[in-house]
Amino acid sequence: MAKAPKTAISPTRADDYPQWYQEVIKAADLAENSPVRGCMVIKPWGYNLWENMQRALDDMFKATGHQNAYFPLLIPMSFLEKEAEHVEGFAKECAVVTHHRLEPDPDGGLRPAGKLEEPLIIRPTSEMIIGATFAKWVQSHRDLPLLINQWANVMRWEMRTRMFLRTAEFLWQEGHTVHATEAEAVEETERMIDVYADFAENWMAMPVVIGSKTAAERFPGAVDTLSIEAMMQDRKALQAGTSHFLGQNFSKAQEIMFQAESGEREHAWTTSWGVSTRLVGALIMTHSDDDGFVLPPRLAPQHIVILPIYRDDESRAAVVEYAQSLKKELEAQRYADAPVRVMIDDRDVRGGEKKWHHVKRGVPIRLEVGPKDIEKNAVFMGRRDQPKSIGVGRDELVSTVADILSDIQQTLFDRALKLREDNTVTITDEKTFRDFFTTKDENTIHGGFAYCHFADEESIEPLLKELKVTIRCVPRDNNDTPGTCFATGKPAAKQAIFAKAY
Amino acid sequence: MAKAPKTAISPTRADDYPQWYQEVIKAADLAENSPVRGCMVIKPWGYNLWENMQRALDDMFKATGHQNAYFPLLIPMSFLEKEAEHVEGFAKECAVVTHHRLEPDPDGGLRPAGKLEEPLIIRPTSEMIIGATFAKWVQSHRDLPLLINQWANVMRWEMRTRMFLRTAEFLWQEGHTVHATEAEAVEETERMIDVYADFAENWMAMPVVIGSKTAAERFPGAVDTLSIEAMMQDRKALQAGTSHFLGQNFSKAQEIMFQAESGEREHAWTTSWGVSTRLVGALIMTHSDDDGFVLPPRLAPQHIVILPIYRDDESRAAVVEYAQSLKKELEAQRYADAPVRVMIDDRDVRGGEKKWHHVKRGVPIRLEVGPKDIEKNAVFMGRRDQPKSIGVGRDELVSTVADILSDIQQTLFDRALKLREDNTVTITDEKTFRDFFTTKDENTIHGGFAYCHFADEESIEPLLKELKVTIRCVPRDNNDTPGTCFATGKPAAKQAIFAKAY
Repeated sequence: MAKAPKTAISPTRADDYPQWYQEVIKAADLAENSPVRGCMVIKPWGYNLWENMQRALDDMFKATGHQNAYFPLLIPMSFLEKEAEHVEGFAKECAVVTHHRLEPDPDGGLRPAGKLEEPLIIRPTSEMIIGATFAKWVQSHRDLPLLINQWANVMRWEMRTRMFLRTAEFLWQEGHTVHATEAEAVEETERMIDVYADFAENWMAMPVVIGSKTAAERFPGAVDTLSIEAMMQDRKALQAGTSHFLGQNFSKAQEIMFQAESGEREHAWTTSWGVSTRLVGALIMTHSDDDGFVLPPRLAPQHIVILPIYRDDESRAAVVEYAQSLKKELEAQRYADAPVRVMIDDRDVRGGEKKWHHVKRGVPIRLEVGPKDIEKNAVFMGRRDQPKSIGVGRDELVSTVADILSDIQQTLFDRALKLREDNTVTITDEKTFRDFFTTKDENTIHGGFAYCHFADEESIEPLLKELKVTIRCVPRDNNDTPGTCFATGKPAAKQAIFAKAY
Repeated sequence: MAKAPKTAISPTRADDYPQWYQEVIKAADLAENSPVRGCMVIKPWGYNLWENMQRALDDMFKATGHQNAYFPLLIPMSFLEKEAEHVEGFAKECAVVTHHRLEPDPDGGLRPAGKLEEPLIIRPTSEMIIGATFAKWVQSHRDLPLLINQWANVMRWEMRTRMFLRTAEFLWQEGHTVHATEAEAVEETERMIDVYADFAENWMAMPVVIGSKTAAERFPGAVDTLSIEAMMQDRKALQAGTSHFLGQNFSKAQEIMFQAESGEREHAWTTSWGVSTRLVGALIMTHSDDDGFVLPPRLAPQHIVILPIYRDDESRAAVVEYAQSLKKELEAQRYADAPVRVMIDDRDVRGGEKKWHHVKRGVPIRLEVGPKDIEKNAVFMGRRDQPKSIGVGRDELVSTVADILSDIQQTLFDRALKLREDNTVTITDEKTFRDFFTTKDENTIHGGFAYCHFADEESIEPLLKELKVTIRCVPRDNNDTPGTCFATGKPAAKQAIFAKAY
C-alpha cells in the first residue's frame, strides 16, 4: 500500500469528517470556543469572510428594494404566550432575563437582584416584535410593500453545538416584508430564494438546488417554505437559506391590516427569509481539503499573499521593496468589480511555516519572491486550488491576475458541482434507497442526493427515521414528470430530494 | 410683537429643547420606542444614517490597521466578581440571564424554567471577555500589536432613557488593542481620538474639542481618557467619543502577557475606544432646526429627492420620465468619492405634504419638477440649509451638484462652529462663572463652554454640583499658558472646559 501523503490537517476528510471540520476552523483561525457554552468567538479571518458575505448580500437586498432597520434584542415573555396557547407541550429553549442588577451576595461573590416584573427573552428570531411593529406602521395600501431587513445576533439554547453550523448565539439577517396581495408576496418569496441561490453559486461557488419544503419540514405557520440545499463533501445536505411565504397567517395573528384602495380593511400578506453565519460552515465544508481552508476569491479577505524570501538583511531590503511595488501594481487591478486585495507577510517566521500558514487559511494565490525571482522579474505562484507552484513573469501575472482569480472561482464551483452530480441518483425502489443510505461509519460519507417520486410524506416517515434521512425539498425546476412513489408504489406527481443532512 | 413664523416642529428649540428633540426624531422617522422599556426601534431612515456612519468609521479603522472580530453577547457572572472585589458598594445595572427555557405555567401563561448553574449577563461592554480572550491570543512580541474592533449591541439597565442619547440597548463599536510598549499604546490612544475628531468634523460637520478627562471623569481603570466634546444648540456639551490609555492596569487584571525579544515575560499595554448610536443624537442636536432634521450630505441616506409635480395622468408620464432621466444623470456624478444618491418620491400624496415630508427628514436637496420646468429644461431647487427655493437650469445643476453638496456640508460645519465660538468664554472668577451657568429654564439654553484655569478638582466639586456643571476635558491643544484657578486663586497649569452636559 502506498504511503498516504502528509497533510496539514489531521484527521483527513476520509478519516473523520466531523473532526476534520473542527481542525480546519482551528488551522484557518476562523473561530474558537468562548467561555460561554455554545457561543463562539469569531476571529478576524473568519469575521472578515462574514463581512464580505454581508456586504454582497446587503447590496443584493438593497438592489431589490429592501431597507435595513433595527429592532430590540429583548422580547417580553407575554409575546410568546399567544404562540404557546396553540402549541401542545410548548417549551422554548431560549435565554431568559429575569433580573436587572448584580449585587454582592452576603455569602460571597455576586447574585442577581432587581427582579423584573415580566421576564424578557433574548430574541431567537425577531418575527414577533417586528410583526407587532409592522401592525403600527402599516395603515394604508400606500404603505405597501414594506420591505425590511435586519442584521442581528440571535440566540437559541441549543444542546449540541458545532461552530458556525449550530451555535447558541449566531449572526444572521432576517428579512420581513408585507404586501397588499398574495401574488406580490409569493413573488417576493421567490425573488429572495433566487437572491440566495445567486449568492451561493456566484459568490460562494457552492451549487444549490431550489425547492419547497414538505409540510413536515416547513417553517411553522408558513404556507410555503423555499430553501436552497447544497451538498457537502461528506455527501450530506446543508440547508443554506430559506424564504417563507406566510400567507395571511402572521398578519392575522399580529393584526397587520391595511386599508385597500376599495376602502376595505384587509389583512396583509407577509414573507420572511434569512441566512446566517451557518453559511461560513457551508463554505468550509464545500471547498476545504486535507491541507485546510479553501476560499473562493470573490469572498476571500485577501486574494493574494506575497511571501518575501531572503537570507540576510541586505537581500531583505531589495525583496521587501520588490514585494511592495508588486503589491501596489496588483492592487491597481480589478477583479469582480473591486480592487484586487493583496497582503505581504513579512513576519519573522521560517519560509515553510509561513507558506503553510496561508495554505491552511485558504488564500487563493500565494506569491513567493526571492532574490533570484527579482533577477528574472518573476515570482513563484501557488494557487490554492492546484497542488504545484509555478514560475510566472511579473508582467504576465499583473495582466492576468483577474483571469486567474476568475479561474479559481470557476474551478471551485465546477468541482463542487461535479461532486454533487457524481453523488446524485434517481431511485425508484425501497431496496436501492436503503442501500444508498446505509453507511458503515457515521464519520465519513453518507450516500448523496436521491431524487425519488413520493406520494405521501406520512407513510414513509418510519423508513426515513430508521435511515436518518430527510426530505430536503421538492425541487422547483424540471420536476413536472409524474411517476410512482419509491416506497409505496402509489402515483406521485413530483420528485423530492432525499438526503442525510446537517 | 411680530407673529412667529409657523414651523414644522412644535415645540420649537426656543420653547422646549428636550421636547423639540423628541419631535424631530418622530417627524424624521428616525426611531420609535419599543414594547421593551428603554429599548428603541431604529427605523430605516435612522438606520441608514447609522450604516453610513459605520461604513465611514470602519474604513478609517481598517486604514489604521484594525481588524474586526466578534465576541459573545453573554458574559459569565464570575467574570464580574473580580471587579466587584475592588469596588465598594458594587451594584451593576445589567440584564441578567438566569434560565434557558420557557414552559407553561400551571397557573396560566408561561414561566422561566431550566435554571442556569451560573447566571450570565448581557454585555454592557466586552472589555472583560475580550481581555480573557486576548490573554490566550497574545504569547509573544510577534503577536503585537493586536488591533481589534467589534461592532455590536450592548445593554445597560438605564433608569432614565432618551432615544439615541441614552438607551438600555444601544449599538456601538469597541476597539481593543494590545501593545508591547507604553509609547505605542499612548500613540494608539491619540490616533483613535484623532480618527473620531476627523469623523465628527469632516463627516458629521460637527466641530469638536479633543482633550483629557480629569481623574474624577476618567473611565475607571484608565490612566488617561481622551474625549471629543461637541456643543449642542442648547449650549450643552455632548461627549461624542472616547479613547482610553489603560496602561498595564487591564493587562495585569486579565494577565495579558507576552515574551519580549529579551526573553522576559512582560505585561502588555492596552487601549480601548468607542463610539455609539449616541452620535445620531449628537447629529440631530447639532444641525436640526424648527422644521426638522438637517442631514450633512456626506452621511445623508439620500442626497437629493426629486418631487414630480403634475395635475393629470398625461402630464404625469412626461414629468416622471424627466425625473427618471435627471436621476440617472445626477447619479452619474460623484460627491466625496461616492456616487450622488438620488431618490424620486412619486407617492400619490399632495405636493405640499410631500415637500414637508422631506424637509422634516433633512434631505439636503429637494428638486421639484413640473411641466413648466420641463419646458424650460430646469428644476426648482430647495436646499435644506437655506429658506428659499430657487429655479436652476438642468445642465447647471448636474455640473455643479457636487459643489452644492460640498457647500451645504461646509455651511453646516461653519454654523455649528460659529454657535460654539459665540458661546465659548474664558472665565477667571467665580462670580462670572456662576452667572454664566445660572439658567432660568431647564428646557432652553445653558451657558456654553467656559475655559477656566483650575488648580484642583476636589475643591471645586461642591460648586460644580450646585450649578450642575461638569469638567468636560482639559483641551489637548493650545493649553500651555499657566494662570490662576477661577475658584481658588491658586496657580494652575492648564485650562479645562466647563459646561453642562448630556
